[in-house]
Amino acid sequence: MKILVLEQDAESYALHLNDVEDNICYASSPINLDRDFDVLLARPDLAAAYLGDGGQVKWIQSTWAGVRPLADAVEDNSVLVTGIKEVFGAQIADYVFTYVLEELRHPSVYRAAQRQKRWRQELPGFTLNRHMVIVGTGSIGSHLASVAKAFGMHVSGVSQTGTHTSEFDRVVPVPELNEIVADADYVVLALPDTAATYRLCNAETFAAMRNRPLVFNVGRGSTLDHSALLQALRERRVRGAVLDVFDIEPLPADDPLWDNPGIVITPHIAAVSYPKDIAAIFLNNLAKYKGGKPLDYPIDLSRGY
Amino acid sequence: MKILVLEQDAESYALHLNDVEDNICYASSPINLDRDFDVLLARPDLAAAYLGDGGQVKWIQSTWAGVRPLADAVEDNSVLVTGIKEVFGAQIADYVFTYVLEELRHPSVYRAAQRQKRWRQELPGFTLNRHMVIVGTGSIGSHLASVAKAFGMHVSGVSQTGTHTSEFDRVVPVPELNEIVADADYVVLALPDTAATYRLCNAETFAAMRNRPLVFNVGRGSTLDHSALLQALRERRVRGAVLDVFDIEPLPADDPLWDNPGIVITPHIAAVSYPKDIAAIFLNNLAKYKGGKPLDYPIDLSRGY
Repeated sequence: MKILVLEQDAESYALHLNDVEDNICYASSPINLDRDFDVLLARPDLAAAYLGDGGQVKWIQSTWAGVRPLADAVEDNSVLVTGIKEVFGAQIADYVFTYVLEELRHPSVYRAAQRQKRWRQELPGFTLNRHMVIVGTGSIGSHLASVAKAFGMHVSGVSQTGTHTSEFDRVVPVPELNEIVADADYVVLALPDTAATYRLCNAETFAAMRNRPLVFNVGRGSTLDHSALLQALRERRVRGAVLDVFDIEPLPADDPLWDNPGIVITPHIAAVSYPKDIAAIFLNNLAKYKGGKPLDYPIDLSRGY
Repeated sequence: MKILVLEQDAESYALHLNDVEDNICYASSPINLDRDFDVLLARPDLAAAYLGDGGQVKWIQSTWAGVRPLADAVEDNSVLVTGIKEVFGAQIADYVFTYVLEELRHPSVYRAAQRQKRWRQELPGFTLNRHMVIVGTGSIGSHLASVAKAFGMHVSGVSQTGTHTSEFDRVVPVPELNEIVADADYVVLALPDTAATYRLCNAETFAAMRNRPLVFNVGRGSTLDHSALLQALRERRVRGAVLDVFDIEPLPADDPLWDNPGIVITPHIAAVSYPKDIAAIFLNNLAKYKGGKPLDYPIDLSRGY
């Protein structure tokens, strides 16, 4: 069995895979590679480019949570694709609450007072009893929900099916999105890039918001209608947005999102794929693959997640 | 029955107490008040000053969590004293994680890059698997522990008895403090001001820290030896401190804590007594008091909490 690690920084995986007895190659580009690899541990976009030239790949372990590039490259689920779950939820919770708490507790106010040695008791806000709507109830949304609950927030989820899960106070199906955001203080988009999620958060969604929420996008840029967001900021329907993902990344320098004072831009760092974590998932799946057992985190490419 | 509300901003309580049928007076100073009040809803320091001139007070509902000033003013538990619990835990968790996450996720780095329209993927740190030691396992420490657990941290508690409670991975008694801080990433002091907690965190404690933790004090200033903290910062035994409470408040302008670059000073705002919350606790206790039932949150002044 031949394994190809196809990643921008493929060498960083070598340290974590040196106990594997199979033939492993490391490459950072899909160009001019042998066609006889059976297994790929790869970035979805690079894997898609590799598959485009044919080959005998049977299983791809994605190094990203989002596998959209593979949906177009793999026909009829002919290749087994597995994803990355669990490891991103904790990072996303850190990210969201960094900005939730920075806004509520304004540490910069006290820091400025400290520089002047002034005791300035400007009162903070608090998370208790605030309403957070999390759109997407997968492993990332669910983990975020459990953290929000621990803070004492009211937490609603939105999913395709509306199936209740224990991390949320309630879960509603997508058609009820515009009802549930009405009194939201925070709306967090945590959705994969699929046909069903394209521009799910749009002008109608913003029109339904009555409580000027802070809006986060930690899923994929395609979920959010950015023109509608800019309009909603102008109309003061939302009080701000914290965006980690965009239609085109890196975000082009001429994009109006960059210098809107209501928008925080972060460069797709809300959840980072660390080779150590990804390699651990791959090794676990590799053992199952060799043993003929079902793999963890299988992706249904027809759904996109 | 006559009730005295004795608070700096006593009038702000009136709105929340207007359903009470008893005779209520509102005062912001303990000077020149009638001596015939039976019940006080009061700041502990103002209540202590009032009691010093005699009277017939039978029950004091404190508006603060910390009741140290009453310990010296009330003899032999001759007056029933009740405190404030539950409402501060959520605020303290907000406070601690504001600074935990600001350090790990450095939002200012991305904000500076945004001003330059630069996509700068400086990687963040994360809370997952970090070790937080919370000294004090009362309602504040326990609530903080449950939030830290939700983030995926390892959470240890330190208490007088070392009795295990479900919010913590483990709880140890005070004599084991210096062992448990050895590998701590965060040490949070959440203790009342009592004889037993005076300078509990001192040079020996800092000497035991091996992992350069970030140290918080959200309890009372007396718990922390500030000279030892400054020494620990010089010796790089701790990587920083976030202090909300001090021996003298407001912190005097000539205190060296103000301009130490490793120290964040906040003006005792980690948990704020909101009249609405305090009044709700008082009204609940008042009904119990009239009914001859045990009150919520009784204070044992000989212990100090």
